[in-house]
Amino acid sequence: MSTNRPLILISNDDGITAPGILATVDVMKKLGNVVVVAPDSPQSGMGHAITINKPLRLVKNNQFGPEVESYHCSGTPADCVKIAVDKVLHRKPDLLVSGANHGSNSSINVIYSGTMSAAMEGAIEGITAIGFSLTDFSWDADFTATKVFMEKITKNVIQNGLPTDTLLSVNIPNIPLEDIKGVKVCRQAKAKWVEEFDQRRDPYGRDYYWLTGKFTNMDKGEDTDEWALANGFVSMVPVQFDLTAHHAIPTLNSWDL
Amino acid sequence: MSTNRPLILISNDDGITAPGILATVDVMKKLGNVVVVAPDSPQSGMGHAITINKPLRLVKNNQFGPEVESYHCSGTPADCVKIAVDKVLHRKPDLLVSGANHGSNSSINVIYSGTMSAAMEGAIEGITAIGFSLTDFSWDADFTATKVFMEKITKNVIQNGLPTDTLLSVNIPNIPLEDIKGVKVCRQAKAKWVEEFDQRRDPYGRDYYWLTGKFTNMDKGEDTDEWALANGFVSMVPVQFDLTAHHAIPTLNSWDL
Repeated sequence: MSTNRPLILISNDDGITAPGILATVDVMKKLGNVVVVAPDSPQSGMGHAITINKPLRLVKNNQFGPEVESYHCSGTPADCVKIAVDKVLHRKPDLLVSGANHGSNSSINVIYSGTMSAAMEGAIEGITAIGFSLTDFSWDADFTATKVFMEKITKNVIQNGLPTDTLLSVNIPNIPLEDIKGVKVCRQAKAKWVEEFDQRRDPYGRDYYWLTGKFTNMDKGEDTDEWALANGFVSMVPVQFDLTAHHAIPTLNSWDL
Repeated sequence: MSTNRPLILISNDDGITAPGILATVDVMKKLGNVVVVAPDSPQSGMGHAITINKPLRLVKNNQFGPEVESYHCSGTPADCVKIAVDKVLHRKPDLLVSGANHGSNSSINVIYSGTMSAAMEGAIEGITAIGFSLTDFSWDADFTATKVFMEKITKNVIQNGLPTDTLLSVNIPNIPLEDIKGVKVCRQAKAKWVEEFDQRRDPYGRDYYWLTGKFTNMDKGEDTDEWALANGFVSMVPVQFDLTAHHAIPTLNSWDL
């Protein structure tokens, strides 16, 4: 085993059995030594949740064959990264790759995304981190193009590193490889979900509600991830975890407090 | 009932029975017409989680007496805001106040915070939003000073509004009111949690892990929330939900992709 192969930690939010994480393992095995710590069940929409009200389980498995060290964990994606660093690797990995997600992490979705929360947890801890997503929610999504761009972009990250306190959110459009026009560096589009709760009545006469919503893009910019994906490009957004709205500080300083 | 009193939605992450939300209701009743939709159980550390794998319950209660319309919901803080807008208010409230949290939402904690996720969900939806936190985790924390600053700051927000796409994260230091030196507008300190999992063995011989951690502030700046709190000030950080690291875009554009 070559000693200068990077140690790559892989996690996701769709769970250890998702086809998307298998695609990631396939690619990353070529680029480094891989360890997987992923949730034991789907964790979509978990945002940056961590588990503090109950203990976690961590179980070694053989999900990716004997050559890949692999664990499933009862926690959230962020928990997986934390426990991987502390209890599995006993050091920071050289790279953290989260995904590939089945779905979209573009625009505002980065805030709700469990995939991106794993990558962000890594970045907060000083680990070079990337989250990948294929904009296809189906379990039998075709990761052919995703694997090609995952390899290309990850090689660039290994070679160049990432700007300080920055991680990457990469979305691959759900179109055939030959139709993809390239990779576009983007900003997050300004968009939101307009919720529409589906109200039902249970057999005991009590109401319950399913959260559904309609994605609404308010952003006409051609430098956004939504534009890139709609126009056949892979979108690559640099993401930060400093949430300070620095531009708003002078306004607030003018208040009478 | 005066028609120009603002409609104020209150939520939190410690749950509908937490003393901190009662303190908030007490203050906001003076400033507007209050509706409460809060989690039915503690949701600390939930980050920006939303519930998509199971339905939600929403139950009207009488938690704050007959004059305050109040509901508890089985979902996360972000779910509470979504269902409040869609199924309780049937319109956007004029103001959303989340908390007061028992604990700290300073620096990196804003990412893990359920309190701030409720406020952020509001801001994403275009609602003026504030999250308050008292840096005291105990259930019998003294909210006297918090109530004073909650009223002062909320009055300013009602009068001045907030800069576009910005919400406020306010932390009150756990010291007596007379020792608080004032309010400081701050940036989020660069800090992280260094995790230390507490490993135990269950009665059946299997390991489990409690997530614990040590807060580590790497930021010496005197313009940060951590500095303000340590020096007897209330910290007020403008927060944004555009996570794009705009400064990193030129670097990524130089890559060979």
